[in-house]
Amino acid sequence: MPNVLFAAPAEDWPRYEPHLHRACRARGITINLVPETDDPASMDYIVYNPEGGLEDFTPFTRLRAVLSLWAGVEGIAPNPTLTVPLARMVDDGLTLGMRDYVAGHVLRYHLDIDASLASQTGVWLPDPPPLARERSVAVLGQGALGLACAEALAGLGFRVVGWSRSPKPPHPAIEREHGADGLARTLSRAEILVLLLPATRATENLLDASRLALLPRGARIINPGRGTLIDDGALLAALDSGQVAHATLDVFREEPLPPDHPYWTHPRVTVTPHIAAATRPETASETIAENIRRGEAGEPLLHLVDRSLGY
Amino acid sequence: MPNVLFAAPAEDWPRYEPHLHRACRARGITINLVPETDDPASMDYIVYNPEGGLEDFTPFTRLRAVLSLWAGVEGIAPNPTLTVPLARMVDDGLTLGMRDYVAGHVLRYHLDIDASLASQTGVWLPDPPPLARERSVAVLGQGALGLACAEALAGLGFRVVGWSRSPKPPHPAIEREHGADGLARTLSRAEILVLLLPATRATENLLDASRLALLPRGARIINPGRGTLIDDGALLAALDSGQVAHATLDVFREEPLPPDHPYWTHPRVTVTPHIAAATRPETASETIAENIRRGEAGEPLLHLVDRSLGY
Repeated sequence: MPNVLFAAPAEDWPRYEPHLHRACRARGITINLVPETDDPASMDYIVYNPEGGLEDFTPFTRLRAVLSLWAGVEGIAPNPTLTVPLARMVDDGLTLGMRDYVAGHVLRYHLDIDASLASQTGVWLPDPPPLARERSVAVLGQGALGLACAEALAGLGFRVVGWSRSPKPPHPAIEREHGADGLARTLSRAEILVLLLPATRATENLLDASRLALLPRGARIINPGRGTLIDDGALLAALDSGQVAHATLDVFREEPLPPDHPYWTHPRVTVTPHIAAATRPETASETIAENIRRGEAGEPLLHLVDRSLGY
Repeated sequence: MPNVLFAAPAEDWPRYEPHLHRACRARGITINLVPETDDPASMDYIVYNPEGGLEDFTPFTRLRAVLSLWAGVEGIAPNPTLTVPLARMVDDGLTLGMRDYVAGHVLRYHLDIDASLASQTGVWLPDPPPLARERSVAVLGQGALGLACAEALAGLGFRVVGWSRSPKPPHPAIEREHGADGLARTLSRAEILVLLLPATRATENLLDASRLALLPRGARIINPGRGTLIDDGALLAALDSGQVAHATLDVFREEPLPPDHPYWTHPRVTVTPHIAAATRPETASETIAENIRRGEAGEPLLHLVDRSLGY
C-alpha cells in the first residue's frame, strides 16, 4: 500500500481526503493517505500545494513522484531539492471553469456590458455591437487551458488567433501563430487579448511597454494566467493613456493583491480574486489517483513537468 | 423587372438600397426598387418595416408578397388589408447577434460579473462560481433564434432546456419540453431564463405572477424576445420580493422605454435599448433577394408567416 503525504494547507485536508480515497479505490488501489508524517523516508508520493509550506524534499529518500494540486508549478519546478518526477494538475473542472471565465469576460468586452450597466439613465441610445465574427481575439498560450478557451471562443464565432512559444499543428477553427514574429503579428490584431501562459523566466514581463504598444489602440486585456506575465507599471501607463481601454486581472505578483495596489481603484481595471479557475477536489482527485495508479503499475505519469522549461 | 417598394423609415433607404441591388444582381435579377410610389397598383413586392408607417395594403392590387425586414411580425400579421403571403426576416446576422447577447448575459449572470464590478474594494474574497455544467438555463422559444441560443449555451457546457409551444424532435444537446405541463417543469428548474418567443395572443403575459412563482428563488431573467411576454407589474413585484434576483430586458411594450419607467431605476434591472439583435442590411438583403428570386421563379417563399398563429 503506497504511503501518500498530503502536503497542503490544513483546510484542504477534509475537502480532498474522501475524494482521493474514492478515486484511488475506483482504480483498485488502496492508499495510506496522511496529512503529515514523522517518517519522510517512508513516503512514496507527495500530493502538493505550495501553500502547505513544504520546501525541502531532501528527507523524502524513497519518493517516487510529486503530484501537484496546482496547474501552475512555478513555485516548485525550480526547487533544487526535488529530484523525482513532478506532475502538473490538469483538471477537467479547472479547464471548464477557466473556459467559463474567459468566454464570459470576452463577451462582456465584446458587448460592452459595463457601458450597459452604467447607462441606466432613461436615455434610449441603441447602438448594436458588431458580431463576434467581426471581432479579433488573441489567446497567448495554447496548452490545455489556452486551447480550451480558444476553441470555446471560436465556437462563439470570434476570429481567434492562438499564439504559443513553439509551433503547433494547424487547427480548423483557430489561426495559429508562434515565436517572436508571430507574437508581434498576434498582438497587432488583438482587440481582446487573453493571457494563458505559464509563469517562466521566458514569459516574465512578456507584456511590457513595447508589446503593449503593438496592440490596436483601445484593446482590452484579460489575464487569468499568471501575474508575472504583465509589467504592471507598463500596463498602468497604457491604461492611463488609453492605449489599453480596460483590463480584467485575476492573478497578481502578490496575492492577495494588497489593498493599496493601484489596480483596485483604477477605473479601467477589474480585479477578480484568483477565481477564474479553481482546482476542484472531486475532479482533481481523479488526476492524482490516475498518476498514483500509473506510478504503481510502472507506467509513465501524465502531465509531467519539463523542468528545464519550467512547465 | 419587378417593382419593389421599400416601405421603411427614410434613414433605412441609404443603408439598404445598395445591398438589396447587389443581393438581387447576385441572383441574376434586376429590380426597380423605390422608396415611395404614386402608383401602388404597379408594385410587385413590398420590403416592410412597420416603422415606415404603411398600414393599408388595399391599393396594392398586384402585390405578390410582403417581405418583412423584422423577425417579429406582430405589427403586420393581424392586418386585415394584407391578403398576400407575408415572409418574416430570418437573418444570419440577426441570429448571430442574438447569440452573442444571450451567451454574454447568461455568462454574466453565471459568473456574477456585476458583483465583481461592484467589489473593487481592496478586499480579497475568492469564491469561485460553479461550473456551467452545474447551472440550468431555460430558453423559451425554439425557433431560429431560440434554437441558435440554446445550442450556443449547450456548447458552453450549460444544462439547457428548450421549451416550445408544440413538440419538437429530440436534440442531442438540448433537453426539450413543450406545452403547459412542460412549461411548468421548465420554469421550476430555470436558474437563468431566456425569453425568445414571438409576440402573439398566446404568449401575451406568459410570464405572469403565477409563472414567476414557479421559478427557483433568485432566478435571473433575460428578455431579448418581445416586451409583451412579461407582465411588467408582476415582474417588478417578483424583483422586489427577491423571487427574481435580476432581469436584463432588451424589449418593452413601449419603445423607447419611457424615461420615467421603473425599470430604468430598479437596482435589479438592466435595460438595454433593443440592441440584442439588429437586422443588418448586408445579411438581411440576402434573405429579401432570395425571396424575390423565388417569387419570380414561382417557387415557394422562405419563412412564410402562418397568420393564424401570428408568426
